[in-house]
Amino acid sequence: MKAVVYRGARDLGIEDRDPVPPGPGQVRIEVAYTGICGTDLHIYHGDMDARVGDSAIIGHEMSGRIAAVGPDTTGWSIGQPVTVLPTRPCGTCPACQRGHSHVCHAMNFLGIDSPGAMQSYWTVPADLVLPLPEDLPLDHAALVEPVAVAVHDVRRANVTADDQVVVVGGGPVGALIAVVARDRGARVLLVELDPFRREVAEGIGIEVVDPGSTDVVALVNERTNGAGADIAFEVSGSAGGVTTAVDVLTTRGRLVMVAIHPRPREVNLHRFFWRELELLGARLYQRDDMVEAIQLVASGAIPAQQLISRVEPVEAASAAFTALEGGGVMKVLLDLREGDK
Amino acid sequence: MKAVVYRGARDLGIEDRDPVPPGPGQVRIEVAYTGICGTDLHIYHGDMDARVGDSAIIGHEMSGRIAAVGPDTTGWSIGQPVTVLPTRPCGTCPACQRGHSHVCHAMNFLGIDSPGAMQSYWTVPADLVLPLPEDLPLDHAALVEPVAVAVHDVRRANVTADDQVVVVGGGPVGALIAVVARDRGARVLLVELDPFRREVAEGIGIEVVDPGSTDVVALVNERTNGAGADIAFEVSGSAGGVTTAVDVLTTRGRLVMVAIHPRPREVNLHRFFWRELELLGARLYQRDDMVEAIQLVASGAIPAQQLISRVEPVEAASAAFTALEGGGVMKVLLDLREGDK
Repeated sequence: MKAVVYRGARDLGIEDRDPVPPGPGQVRIEVAYTGICGTDLHIYHGDMDARVGDSAIIGHEMSGRIAAVGPDTTGWSIGQPVTVLPTRPCGTCPACQRGHSHVCHAMNFLGIDSPGAMQSYWTVPADLVLPLPEDLPLDHAALVEPVAVAVHDVRRANVTADDQVVVVGGGPVGALIAVVARDRGARVLLVELDPFRREVAEGIGIEVVDPGSTDVVALVNERTNGAGADIAFEVSGSAGGVTTAVDVLTTRGRLVMVAIHPRPREVNLHRFFWRELELLGARLYQRDDMVEAIQLVASGAIPAQQLISRVEPVEAASAAFTALEGGGVMKVLLDLREGDK
Repeated sequence: MKAVVYRGARDLGIEDRDPVPPGPGQVRIEVAYTGICGTDLHIYHGDMDARVGDSAIIGHEMSGRIAAVGPDTTGWSIGQPVTVLPTRPCGTCPACQRGHSHVCHAMNFLGIDSPGAMQSYWTVPADLVLPLPEDLPLDHAALVEPVAVAVHDVRRANVTADDQVVVVGGGPVGALIAVVARDRGARVLLVELDPFRREVAEGIGIEVVDPGSTDVVALVNERTNGAGADIAFEVSGSAGGVTTAVDVLTTRGRLVMVAIHPRPREVNLHRFFWRELELLGARLYQRDDMVEAIQLVASGAIPAQQLISRVEPVEAASAAFTALEGGGVMKVLLDLREGDK
């Protein structure tokens, strides 16, 4: 079978590997589609070599069908459509012991710390597998994992129908947060510099502005009779994005920190004090977030078709990674299917 | 009567003023003691001239007795001991309309925006007056307002008996937060550079360390089996204090921002993301916080005697302000009583 193997910075190989037979408590999944995530790009850039081993098969946003069921493993049938919760917490670290196992300090993340989904057959623990509705197209289903990120972020912010929400950064996760917040009934404004991404957002009915030409804080204040936004999501990873997300908030407003900021950022702490603002870090997801994400994708609340910019054959993996660096795309999927397509 | 009048930066006058007769809905209070707050120091330095007018009587941490009751004002008797909630929200701004009137955008703060408590007779709206127990010494009662700040901060953090709490900064408000958190049953560690303030903290049974000689993060990790603190209060106003307060926290830990940071600070937002930390701004107090503060001072939970470093006659107001700039003191009160002392 084909597998996308990380060989070192900017070096992906397409290798022929033997599928792993499922052991007790495991299933083998015939992978259909695997999305390329920002984390996969970080791996590709060589930034995560401390966690990702040599010759590692990466990828963790996927859909597929059960292909084989290991001994003493029940509840699954061959051909059943599924996706995978790619996180295995340790159970013993302080985060796990305090009930926050989804941000386990010693997480085994499938596709980073152990083999991932960019292979035609993926053998995983059955307890991480989630069933998909039969009628859900498998390319759409490959979005379930990033949708779960958005569901987790929106849940962390406790978005309700009364809220004015500002999402700073309109890449795949930012756009999905905007969609999930809209699904909760909130009024949503997306802020994005890139024209292509603004166009995609407009195409899915999300109001979006260019912070290069729009005074976002003034606009939100105008919309809210001077109050400001109830909730802001920082998904841009930029210094300017942090400033906008803080300045846009109303008294007791909540800022959810979704983006990765590798370096410390200057933050207006006086405004946190003065308006009693709240900052909430949000990372990954819990099983419930994955379950809700499946429902949202299946119901059509997530405009999956418009968010998937390209589907590439596995042989084009390197080109697909390079395309993501250049912008002008939202979600890119790899097609891992071996048979007729 | 005597009044402490702010005439301009570093210029306090002791003037003879006529007491204001109480109008309908007002009472006149014979002031006993008024504490000097960090905000009073900011005024003294000329930093708040935009809000504080010429010849303004400042001060807002006070105790006294009802001296006169205005027309159509019921529920108060001459001689009754009282303190004052010094905040009058506007009722119409976005903060007020959303139920956060304690951080009103157009607050009338008595002692800043209108005449304060550094006068022997203070006429105030009766609805801001709070009764004190008869047996509560009035010098101790002058601490009720800063205790209310600490109660509000501790309430905002939702401190419980299971929590490891770190308070960064051991001035009057930091020490009071430590005491109130201890009263909730939490394990408390105070972090303070100044030897005098550490000595005061030790004297009231609060464990305190010098961050100049102790690795605070290592100590807290050791105490918590590597988990970190549940809650940190940043009360130092320093860049290093912010770093300590972030680094000391466990997964989903909460940082309460109490101090004023006039300039933006570098904050490790990656850690907020990675550990799903929370930052909560906290400012002033609500009426309930004042009511609880009265109970805490009256019950002896607040070691008022040890926290009051000096009580100065009103004539020594300038010297008292200068002393606070130099350190080596905690709370300083002015004695406003006109009769036998």
